[in-house]
Order: sequence, then C-alpha cells, then structure tokens
Amino acid sequence: MNYPMVFYIIGNLLKVEAGLLLLPSFVAVIFKNDTLSAFGLTILLLLAVGIPLSWKHPSNCAVYAREGFFIVGVSWLLLSVFGALPFVLSGEIPRFVDAFFETVSGFTTTGASILPKVEVLSHSMLFWRSFTHWVGGMGVLVFVLAILPQSNAQTLQIMKAEVPGPTCGKLVSKVRHTALILYGIYLAMTLLLIVLLVLGGMPLFDSILHAFGTAGTGGFGIKTASIGYYNSPYLDGVIGVFMLLFGTNFNLYYLLFLGGIWSVLKSQELRWYLGIVGVSVALITLDILPLYGENPFQSFRYAFFQVSSIITTTGYTTADYSQWPVFSQTILVLIMFVGAMAGSTGGGMKVSRVAILFKNAMRGLRSMLCPRSVRALKFEGKVIDGQTLGGINCFFTAYVLLFSLSVLLMSLDQYDHVSNFTAVTACFNNIGPALGICGPAGSYAPFSDLSKFVLSFDMLAGRLEIFPILMLFLPATYRDH
Amino acid sequence: MNYPMVFYIIGNLLKVEAGLLLLPSFVAVIFKNDTLSAFGLTILLLLAVGIPLSWKHPSNCAVYAREGFFIVGVSWLLLSVFGALPFVLSGEIPRFVDAFFETVSGFTTTGASILPKVEVLSHSMLFWRSFTHWVGGMGVLVFVLAILPQSNAQTLQIMKAEVPGPTCGKLVSKVRHTALILYGIYLAMTLLLIVLLVLGGMPLFDSILHAFGTAGTGGFGIKTASIGYYNSPYLDGVIGVFMLLFGTNFNLYYLLFLGGIWSVLKSQELRWYLGIVGVSVALITLDILPLYGENPFQSFRYAFFQVSSIITTTGYTTADYSQWPVFSQTILVLIMFVGAMAGSTGGGMKVSRVAILFKNAMRGLRSMLCPRSVRALKFEGKVIDGQTLGGINCFFTAYVLLFSLSVLLMSLDQYDHVSNFTAVTACFNNIGPALGICGPAGSYAPFSDLSKFVLSFDMLAGRLEIFPILMLFLPATYRDH
Repeated sequence: MNYPMVFYIIGNLLKVEAGLLLLPSFVAVIFKNDTLSAFGLTILLLLAVGIPLSWKHPSNCAVYAREGFFIVGVSWLLLSVFGALPFVLSGEIPRFVDAFFETVSGFTTTGASILPKVEVLSHSMLFWRSFTHWVGGMGVLVFVLAILPQSNAQTLQIMKAEVPGPTCGKLVSKVRHTALILYGIYLAMTLLLIVLLVLGGMPLFDSILHAFGTAGTGGFGIKTASIGYYNSPYLDGVIGVFMLLFGTNFNLYYLLFLGGIWSVLKSQELRWYLGIVGVSVALITLDILPLYGENPFQSFRYAFFQVSSIITTTGYTTADYSQWPVFSQTILVLIMFVGAMAGSTGGGMKVSRVAILFKNAMRGLRSMLCPRSVRALKFEGKVIDGQTLGGINCFFTAYVLLFSLSVLLMSLDQYDHVSNFTAVTACFNNIGPALGICGPAGSYAPFSDLSKFVLSFDMLAGRLEIFPILMLFLPATYRDH
Repeated sequence: MNYPMVFYIIGNLLKVEAGLLLLPSFVAVIFKNDTLSAFGLTILLLLAVGIPLSWKHPSNCAVYAREGFFIVGVSWLLLSVFGALPFVLSGEIPRFVDAFFETVSGFTTTGASILPKVEVLSHSMLFWRSFTHWVGGMGVLVFVLAILPQSNAQTLQIMKAEVPGPTCGKLVSKVRHTALILYGIYLAMTLLLIVLLVLGGMPLFDSILHAFGTAGTGGFGIKTASIGYYNSPYLDGVIGVFMLLFGTNFNLYYLLFLGGIWSVLKSQELRWYLGIVGVSVALITLDILPLYGENPFQSFRYAFFQVSSIITTTGYTTADYSQWPVFSQTILVLIMFVGAMAGSTGGGMKVSRVAILFKNAMRGLRSMLCPRSVRALKFEGKVIDGQTLGGINCFFTAYVLLFSLSVLLMSLDQYDHVSNFTAVTACFNNIGPALGICGPAGSYAPFSDLSKFVLSFDMLAGRLEIFPILMLFLPATYRDH
C-alpha cells in the first residue's frame, strides 16, 4: 500500500471538508444561530489533521486498485466522523452514534433520520445536513482529485471506486476533465431547480436545501411531513421530475449536448428505467384510486411522486405510503432494490445491473433449451464480457449476503420483521424512509446503537457499492503481496 | 421436440401413479374408509390416459436437454393434477384448487397445507397425502426410467432435471444402476426410521406416515400440532436426526459403504451443512432459554428439532417458533433459503450453491485487491468451471426474480408483508410452515385462489429448481430450432 499517497489524498480531502464547513458557518451568521463555535472547532480539527497529512507531496503517486478502494473507504468514513462533530458539539444531536448515523445518511445520500421531528435543528445545522447530500451525491473524492494538480492517472482508480455502476465510463480522455464537466452539469441543474422552486412559492432557504436533497437524491427534508408539508401540485411535479433527472446517468446529459435527444433515447438503460417507472406509476395509480376519492389526477400525483422518489432512492414523501394497499407497498419495496441508473447520484442495485442480470437469466434459460445456440449477452449494443458479468454476479451475491447478515443483526433489537427488513432495504439502497417503525411517519430513533452502526455500515456499503467499505475489514488489504 | 418419446415416458409415469394409488386403496379397505371409489375412479382415469400414451415404444428414443426438462415439468404437473382427484372425488377436500395445492405440496415435499385441522381427513387420504412426500422425495421420473427397459442414455438428461443440486453426480457408469442404488438406500433408511418410531411408542400407522414425511423431507403431519403432539424427547430426537440424514447428499451414503466415514467427512458441503446447523442451533438455544425456564436441555431440544426441520426443508414442528424472539425467527427464515444438501430429498437453494456463491464473492473481493493474483474457484477439491459457476449465478438470479414476482402477486390479497414474504419463502424452498397467518399454528387456507396457484407454481419451481417448470411457459420450448 502506498501510504504516503493515501495520506496525501486524505489530508487534502479533510482540508476540503473544512472549506465546505464555511458555508453552514456563514448560514449560522445570517440566522444568528448559536452554532458558530461548533463549526469553527470542527474546521480547526480538520485542518489540524489535514494539513500535516498533506504537507509533503509524495514522490510516488501510484494509485492501484487496492489504494483506490482503500482511499475511498477510509475517506467516506472520516468525512462522516468529522462531519458529525458539529451536531454533537452544538448539542443539537448530543449522542455521537446518532450524529454519525445522520451524517453517514447525509453523505451517502440516504436521508434516513434519527430525528422524530426535524424542526428542532437550527437553520445552520439543517443547511449542513442537506449540504452533505449535495456533496455526497457526486462523490467528493473525484472532486478533490479534479482540483489537485497532476492527478490524472490515479484518478481513474478512485473514480471507479466512487462512481456508482457496473462500469465506469470516461466522457473524455482526461478523467479530470470528465469530472469537471459532470460537476458543471450537476451545479447548473441544481441552480435551475432552486429557481423553479422559488418560482413555485417555496421560501429561498427551503428551496436551496430541497434542491441539495433532490440533486444528491438524498431526501433529508426540513419539515417532518417532508415535501407533503407544502401541499402544492406544482412543487410535487417539479421535484418529482428533477428526482428522475438526477437519477439519470449523467453521461447522457453530456451526450445530449453532443448528439441531441435521439442519441440519448437510444440508451437501453434509460428505456428500462423509464419503463419501470411507467409501469410502477400506472399500477399504483390504479391501486390507490379508492384512497383519493377515485380522483385519477390526485392518485397519479401521489403515485408519481412516491415512485420517482423511491426508484431514484431520494426518499422525499408527499404521502404516508405505509397506509397504502399492500400491493402498492410491495411495488415500492421492489423498486427500492432496483434503484436509479448507473452514473447518477442515486443508489440501489442500479437499473443496468438489474437489466443485465435479467437478460443473463433469460439467456441461461434459452441455453438450456438449445445448448448449442448460445448467443453473447449484449447491453447498450455492446457485448458484456465475462469479467463484467462475473463482477455483476459477484456484486449481487455480496449484496444479498451482507443484506441477510444485516437483517439478522437488526433482529437482536426485537422490533418486527417488516421494520428490520425494510430498514436494511432503505439504508442499503440509500433511500431513507422504510416501512414499520421507520416508515414515512416514523424515524430511526428507536433502534439500538448496534443497529444504528449496522445501518450506517449498510449506507456506506450501498453508496460505495460494497467493496471499498468491506475491504477495510479484510486483513488482506493491509498485507503486502 | 421428440413428442412420441415424451408421450411414451409420460404414459408410463401415469401407469406408475395408478399403481401407487393401490396402496391408499388398501389402507381404505383396512380402515373401512368410504374412499375406495375415489381412488378406484382415479386409477381408471390414469390408466385410460396412460395406456394409450405409452402403447407404442417410439422408434427414436433420443432425449436431449429440452425433452428432459419438458418431460420433467409436464410430468410433475400431471402427477399433481391426477393426484389431487381422490381428495376432490371423496369430498374430503372439495375444491380442486385446494386439493391441487395440497397435492403439489405433497409431491414437491413442501408440506404446506390448506387444512386448518388435518384430523378431518380419513386414514386413507392421510396415507395418500404423506405417501406423495415419499414418492416426490427421490423423484418419481428417475424411478420410472429405472424400471423401463433400454432407457439408459436418455435417463441422464431427465435425472439432471429432476435431481436437485448444481451438478449431477453419477455414482456408477450406468445411470439406471445409480438410481436403483439410491432407491435402495432410501427404502432401507425409511424402514429403519419406522422401526425406531414404533420402538418409541408411536402407533404403527403414525410411524409409517411420519417416516414418509421425514424421508421425503416433506413435513405433512397427521396431527394439527405436528410432531409436538407426541411430546416425546426420544421421538423428537429420532426424527430430528433422520431429517438431517435425509437432507444429506445420498451419494455420501454410497461413499460410506465404499470408503468409510473418513471419505465422507472430507465432503466440503457436508461440513458447511453441519456447520450451519451447529451455529444456528447454538444461537437459537441461547436466544430461547428464557422461554423454557432457563433449562438448556429443553431449549436445545426445541432449537435442534426446528433447525433440523427447516434447513432440511421438512417442516415438522414441535414448537410454535412464531412465538420465539425475532432473532431466532430471523435465523430460521435465513436457513429456509439455504436449504439442504444437493442430491438429497431436501429443497432450498442447496448448501453447495450457497457455499460456492459465498466463495465466489470472497474471491471477487480478493481479485479487486490484487487483480493479478486471481486464483481458481474450488469446491470439493475440484475447480468450478465457468459454465457451472455461470449456471449457479443464473439460477440465483432467476430464483430472486421469480421470488420477487411471487411476493408481488401475493400482495394483491391484502394480507400482511410477513405472511406474503414467508409464504413464498416456505413454498419456494419446499418447507411448509411460514410465519404470520401461515405459521406453525396457521394454514394456507385463507389465501385467494390466485395466491394458491402462485404458491403451487413456486413449490414446483422450487422442487425442480426453476427451469423445467419455467420452460413450460416459454414459446421457444415448442418451436423447432
């Protein structure tokens, strides 16, 4: 392991986090919150650790797969540990376990909260909480590397580990350049959303924070009733559509500039994504009609928002879907696992993985019928090679195993099966609200500390697609080969 | 598709089923049950269809993979349709959907019942119900082929489709000979179990029927309280151990004769199997101690029986585990998915598949650390080739997809999530009792006809490892290539 380079990058990351904390400090000044010392102390701590670590530029800049995964795993853990400090130091979330859970939930863009009533937080803490979504959505390490000088070759390994999806596409030959283009799109879309929300009558502060939560597909609200609080079809529609947009592979936006809408619509993953959304919305709209006075528009409005929120793994709600019929609830739980598109800010297994697994199962079935006429597995017009398919299968198995172990550990708490199962589902897939005690009307507060740690681990494992965070616990990671 | 050969084999199968029905007819005579006409009419129907179908020995005996899967799928469906008739004709289970569910549950060795109180059935129907377990356990088609003349080459394709597990081991070069050896072991172990049960004070009739249910790892009891009715530590112990024995790969018994105990203990799958049983029993024993007055023996007794029953997918119960702590329940649900060893009469995903998937995930993790030092995946001392691994991954994906679709369809019934999820779990893995409304104290009676068909499909899909039954619904199966 190239530790000098690992320390150098992590040191820079901590300095960037110190910089990011200036924004909520500024909010604290505007709203005259009593939290400035909490942010200030955290910034000093981050600099005290970050500056020595990144003092010397290492002579050997090599970053291989192992270093890439390790840097990403440790970075996200440290980001969350330091990011939790303002909550603890200000006393607004006094227990570290809770503050850590909330911060992991923020950076991983999960949006699961241990706060039964979110209104207890000050404006500056609400800002920091939602801002972590925006930072975590695009992946902060790619950002750090994009602004560091001379860091091109090693960036790819880290980008591979931090950007979600079965394969990592480079838009242009220079990874750094790719990262800057993606951040540009991200920023522009976020600003557009803020403008649209303000035009719809949402206060500016609320608009900025909800835009953070939407862009990162995070889902932290600033009202206990989430977006339902505003009860506006316009706002529901805008956020519903933008959640879907942020759940789309960002490469497609770049493609949109270059080749127009038709080159985008050729994307097989996009068609699967919109297809699943369409079918789910249609089925739920019909299923919940009786709950909304047989009014198809109202029924569609709530179905669309909830489906968009859950498949993109955002987690905003405008209706307490735990009161919907079991059929609609089951659809929502199933699309929790599917998740958003690869290369988006969303979580879950990713539409492309699910599509490839499905196509491979169908291919296996056909090859049993006629063993001699086995055709190659194709996706997006390209043949899926054995290594990629093996990687996807491996991911799927690790996903199911870790999922099962998490549910088992959660069951020590003696809450009901539905709460345990869906809590792990909602955290592992970075959604937020689940069913049972942690449904849209509940929170994660009742769970034990062990469960909160398990769920924090799951959120990180989900966001980083399991391996970087799992590797931190393997002795082989620290052995020289 | 070689239809003449398909008809020939299916015709013979129906004649064999007619022969099997003589046994319960005999029981009806002994116990003076009013069911003789129901059995007689079914036998006549079976012969009326079976004799014409198998009249002419086809000139072309070729059975390829497609024919093998097709024969197995159709056979099990027909076996169940005809096997349900005595229940309907005698009026003891008047509705066909219920009788079909009960018979599928029998042949697939599931043991899920639509009877809230099993004591309503006559002795002859109880016998037929339990006898289907014994017949289904070893696979009736392999038996049919073993007794047909000149049927060696084609037997392997059918054996592959009917015998559970990721690979199909031939004991000796002649498949037919292998089948006869396996049936011999099966019969001998069943007889031994009957003797042991009678020695423990269980009435002869009860002993025979429970031996059928244990041997087939089925689990149909003849008392509503299942084995718990007898409340005997000796009987619990005997059945608990024999369930584990019938959940063991039968090839190991043959190996035991040839190479002694040490060659058996070298089996990696056996060690995984016993390891999972050991850990589960230990954890549950500790978890349920407070329920049994802190008495470790009682606690162990109930933990061992329930774990043995569920991992072997039998489904007998001596305790209502839905009253146990959630942690113990979660362990039981997890081992429902693991299931028994490949090549046993048990269901589930099979220990070897789970072990190989686990080892492959660990290998994937290591290969990410050091991409250049990827080692081959080994199990039972042999390298798992790409085709076998691909098949296992394909099975796993198809399993999860079908499972999810089944839960979705079940949710139309508006029962709770736990009942829906665990009903599919218990049927797909051929266990029987689940949690919620279909827990050890409940039954499958409340579900709608649609749900009963879905669960019947799942039981068949689980027993035949998905593909033979799924293929019946694919147009490609009937197209010429």
